[in-house]
Amino acid sequence: MSIKTQKIFEAEFLLEDMREIIRKTSPHSAFSKDDKIQFNEKLKKLSEIVEELRTNKYTELKIKYITNGIELRTREEDFINIHPIQAAGRLTLEARKALISYGDGYSTCDWCRKPFRLDKIHRPPIDEFHSELAEFVGMDQARVVPGARRGFQAVVSSLIEKGDSVLLSAISHYTEFLAVEDSGGTVKEIPLNEKNIVTADATVQKIEDVKKNTKKLPKLIMLDHFDYMFGNEHDVYGIAKVANEYDIPFLYNGAYTVGIMPVDGKKIGADFVVGSGHKSMASVAPSGVLATTDEWASKVFRTTQMVGDITGRKFGIKEVEMLGCTLMGGTLISMMASFPKVVERTKHWDDEVKKSNQFLDEFLAVEGSKVISEYPRKHTLTKVNTTESFDKIAKTHKRRGFFLSDELRKRGIVGEFAGSTRTWKLNTYGRTWDQIKYLGHAFIDIAEKYDVPVKANKQGQYSGDV
Amino acid sequence: MSIKTQKIFEAEFLLEDMREIIRKTSPHSAFSKDDKIQFNEKLKKLSEIVEELRTNKYTELKIKYITNGIELRTREEDFINIHPIQAAGRLTLEARKALISYGDGYSTCDWCRKPFRLDKIHRPPIDEFHSELAEFVGMDQARVVPGARRGFQAVVSSLIEKGDSVLLSAISHYTEFLAVEDSGGTVKEIPLNEKNIVTADATVQKIEDVKKNTKKLPKLIMLDHFDYMFGNEHDVYGIAKVANEYDIPFLYNGAYTVGIMPVDGKKIGADFVVGSGHKSMASVAPSGVLATTDEWASKVFRTTQMVGDITGRKFGIKEVEMLGCTLMGGTLISMMASFPKVVERTKHWDDEVKKSNQFLDEFLAVEGSKVISEYPRKHTLTKVNTTESFDKIAKTHKRRGFFLSDELRKRGIVGEFAGSTRTWKLNTYGRTWDQIKYLGHAFIDIAEKYDVPVKANKQGQYSGDV
Repeated sequence: MSIKTQKIFEAEFLLEDMREIIRKTSPHSAFSKDDKIQFNEKLKKLSEIVEELRTNKYTELKIKYITNGIELRTREEDFINIHPIQAAGRLTLEARKALISYGDGYSTCDWCRKPFRLDKIHRPPIDEFHSELAEFVGMDQARVVPGARRGFQAVVSSLIEKGDSVLLSAISHYTEFLAVEDSGGTVKEIPLNEKNIVTADATVQKIEDVKKNTKKLPKLIMLDHFDYMFGNEHDVYGIAKVANEYDIPFLYNGAYTVGIMPVDGKKIGADFVVGSGHKSMASVAPSGVLATTDEWASKVFRTTQMVGDITGRKFGIKEVEMLGCTLMGGTLISMMASFPKVVERTKHWDDEVKKSNQFLDEFLAVEGSKVISEYPRKHTLTKVNTTESFDKIAKTHKRRGFFLSDELRKRGIVGEFAGSTRTWKLNTYGRTWDQIKYLGHAFIDIAEKYDVPVKANKQGQYSGDV
Repeated sequence: MSIKTQKIFEAEFLLEDMREIIRKTSPHSAFSKDDKIQFNEKLKKLSEIVEELRTNKYTELKIKYITNGIELRTREEDFINIHPIQAAGRLTLEARKALISYGDGYSTCDWCRKPFRLDKIHRPPIDEFHSELAEFVGMDQARVVPGARRGFQAVVSSLIEKGDSVLLSAISHYTEFLAVEDSGGTVKEIPLNEKNIVTADATVQKIEDVKKNTKKLPKLIMLDHFDYMFGNEHDVYGIAKVANEYDIPFLYNGAYTVGIMPVDGKKIGADFVVGSGHKSMASVAPSGVLATTDEWASKVFRTTQMVGDITGRKFGIKEVEMLGCTLMGGTLISMMASFPKVVERTKHWDDEVKKSNQFLDEFLAVEGSKVISEYPRKHTLTKVNTTESFDKIAKTHKRRGFFLSDELRKRGIVGEFAGSTRTWKLNTYGRTWDQIKYLGHAFIDIAEKYDVPVKANKQGQYSGDV
């Protein structure tokens, strides 16, 4: 761990210690003698850390655990993290600040008034946020949900009866499978073409197959715009059009798009748009969004109709599939605090794609390394194959595939799938150009260290860099 | 806002600004000239705040918003918050620290390895935490879920078919209603007795009624140990026994117990125990626990059986009702970090009940004020009626019922239902004895200010205190 990173955490923890004393003595911080001693002691330590940071001379006090076996997590400070699913869920600075203030349980509910529903709260402006969120994905209405999967579940549970067919792609995420299974429906997969892409033609074919075999049309089509496996783009426009022609509702799975690139659900022709907060909207897990049209809202966001048989109780505007309120604290606050930057960053998606390709240009300079995803990339998530490059080293290295992890870690890079030197995934989302260059150079440098051939024009340039 | 509180936040935010620079320049904090200037500027400001805190002399820079319409939240620092549902969800110091480190999206997944399921992760020790959690509530197996409601949903969805009856109490939480409605089942309410308590006898009677009217037994009984309305204790032991005799599964709703008082599910005779992280386990929302016996685990935590019709894909040990992983970030980390203190605090539940009654002793010294919950209290959540005391003032006060909120706020107390001077709820959980005394005195002081009669032995003592 870098000492600077550690000192930042130490300082924040001291401030939290001080905050705890204030909490215990609220409302007027009536400190006891002991409180004063404690408070001043923490303040003194804080002052020392500030001085250490100023002079860049540190007392080495290694904090491993925050508490109870939970290690200090510094992967985003001390490393370039290329983990395939962590990249776009990193909190923004604003979300981290807001979370410090709003961590407590029901922290968003201070001003909850009639009609007592999360998306109706004015302060913080949760109601406004919901409108903006719907607009952001080009739909009429939106709700926050505990992860994209809970969005799938809400839609499937509303639309699917036992025995109904739901079309997913042959490369759909497992959570779509589970949502269908839970509803009693049956999954039917749309095959990929030879380029690992789901097409409109294949969708038509599958619809016809289902119709022929079950005598019924599928009740729903769910499609990942970019899939989790290759990060390939699938023909959501074409497939939405097909769905529309057959009058089958279409769910656009934007777990890998909403929050990082522009998404316009109505333009696509989607009936439902689902996004993930912790995957692509710089938010605390579990969080996400389910958006829909006014037409479908009355079904998927239907309010409770049940009446207590003795009391006659009704619960008014509580929505059945949402189970009432969904994200009533830090998760939602992180979504809201990150939102302006998230909106802004989708406008610069082109740059992210450029950086992704720029990195891969270096990565592919190592002979034998391949990109399995469609290439050039249209996304920052990429599946690579290093069987013909780094895996050859792994075969005889005493650390086997872990040699690559070791070498990457030495260079401050984490998030690869530890031990894998054949096919694995990485994600460059949100890295600066400097970090992108560094990352590419690192792979070349490792290759050269182990005498894996490197393309002539990239040879021997980077050993000083990394 | 107290200036001390604000300075603590300001200091933490500056440290987050510095952390952001470290993140942007990872892995080696290779600061550009501008980064250095920025970093040092933040450090200088931090140093000034430390000095201000030391000398207790402040520059008044009022921060209202953290970002984007989100106000700085200082209800737990500057006030005694008596909000009925926020008290036991306040984060522990440990959770706040851990959250600073683990806010990012999938932060708990750094070391996720085969078989790729949240509750199997060793580092941080999520697997161990799950075992401890099960043991903590006296059950065999436990899973974390996005709120108690998602625990109800998982059980109901597993057990209930369209048309089945589910027994709830006439005072059950609305989320139990919604879970049943979502499954297509029908709610049947067990009536309360004259003391607003659900008894075993009433349960037997209701089971027999349902049997007579529907020719079938109810498929599930869900009961809140302490309810959300009065915080009254219901006969979970007796009702579990009845459920057992009829061979009807019994779900113990511990949203107001698990995490604040000892709960032993097996001793109670429960088949399922559900708890709430953000309500009673000092955790970020949405979070909670669903625990069960080995017998029921195979049903409620059943793994996916579906197979892709083209690919033959299966998703192994992913659990259908959990939709795979549930709380893969800050929510879970807050539960884990708070857990040791949460376990410890349940051992001191008696003290919390004593404090609750101690406060009410003062509260009831205001003539006309009543406790509607069972009394003496067995819980810290209490429903009170001030129609015959403070509401009389509200009738002619220009601020109507808000006069009471105003007076409380002046004394550093928030969390009452703003504007209500008839029946309303409060919760004293987790307050120190000093805060409890202060709270009681405040109500007497307000009464005296408005000439509401106060019992003789409590008169005129507190105006200096509050």
